[in-house]
Amino acid sequence: MATKGEQTREKILKEANQVFKCKGFGATTINDLLAASGTTKGNLYFHFSDKEAIGLEVLRGEQQSFYRFLEQAFQGKSPAAGLDNFFQKALEKQSRQGFVGGCLFGNTALETSDTAPVFAGLVQEVFAEWIRKFEQQITLAQGVEQIRTDVSAGELAEMVVATIEGGIMQSRLQKSETPLKRSLETLRKVLELKTQPHN
Amino acid sequence: MATKGEQTREKILKEANQVFKCKGFGATTINDLLAASGTTKGNLYFHFSDKEAIGLEVLRGEQQSFYRFLEQAFQGKSPAAGLDNFFQKALEKQSRQGFVGGCLFGNTALETSDTAPVFAGLVQEVFAEWIRKFEQQITLAQGVEQIRTDVSAGELAEMVVATIEGGIMQSRLQKSETPLKRSLETLRKVLELKTQPHN
Repeated sequence: MATKGEQTREKILKEANQVFKCKGFGATTINDLLAASGTTKGNLYFHFSDKEAIGLEVLRGEQQSFYRFLEQAFQGKSPAAGLDNFFQKALEKQSRQGFVGGCLFGNTALETSDTAPVFAGLVQEVFAEWIRKFEQQITLAQGVEQIRTDVSAGELAEMVVATIEGGIMQSRLQKSETPLKRSLETLRKVLELKTQPHN
Repeated sequence: MATKGEQTREKILKEANQVFKCKGFGATTINDLLAASGTTKGNLYFHFSDKEAIGLEVLRGEQQSFYRFLEQAFQGKSPAAGLDNFFQKALEKQSRQGFVGGCLFGNTALETSDTAPVFAGLVQEVFAEWIRKFEQQITLAQGVEQIRTDVSAGELAEMVVATIEGGIMQSRLQKSETPLKRSLETLRKVLELKTQPHN
């Protein structure tokens, strides 16, 4: 069982994740984190040296959770169904959040890549891993001709990740699933994804 | 000729644009803006009531400059060449900035859409106009079969803008033109863009 101290630490990280997502890392103050987590300043500084330390820990937690998501999001009866499942799961994930907060990695990429190299390094790792997983799955789909084969899996994977991030941005801006959903539907078409056995 | 006061105002807006792009709106303080523009606090508050007022004016300026960019970025000998020219110009624009700062609209979309509705409204307008222009140009290209015609121009336009924004994000993160350049090249392929008269 988690000790009281561990519970406090987890609570701070959980609430900080949400505050960073909605407000941005730079604009978040220690007071915002205290208010969100209902913690005293003494408790917070017992667990973390400063806001950067909390930010890094939040990003690491999100990285682990995203890697778990990547492990199971490509499940499907065929390679193309796996890709389709990923698109579906990504849309559901954003919908559940009510298109608030968006993608912490995308946000951090835009907000801190010019100013916080440590964060940028971690976020680069996450995107590289995401693209790698997509490339693997597209390669499988290309092997059975369930996706266009005239463009390399690596190139397609990079474009797909860029499109999803841009789609999340648009959906968050409009507070509607439409932009992300439509971008994913268009992706399916231009990638010539064949999820049905006989089409 | 601009008066001294007008020059000061312009200087503040010009420097604030760069600071907001690199540091994010939320993390920028009035002191950052004073340091960047070499202005006194008295001068700054003579021209602007607060940071939000500066942010809105910076966004409006960027909007006007982007609309001018949109007016001439689609020039080309054919509709497809116009689309290709846009891709090229967008890459050059980001390269000139050294992949620092990225796209102010994308940054603002991610940073303030959950917290600053006024900014979000303006940024939505900009994206809607950008997508509309792309849709027009794609419609022209579809009319002469220089781009795939099995997906509607509106759907393709939305996806293209999402992909460019995601590509800018990745290039900014990596401080390299490669991600944006490759995403644009892959777009050309999956859109089946025919810029040469005989291919």
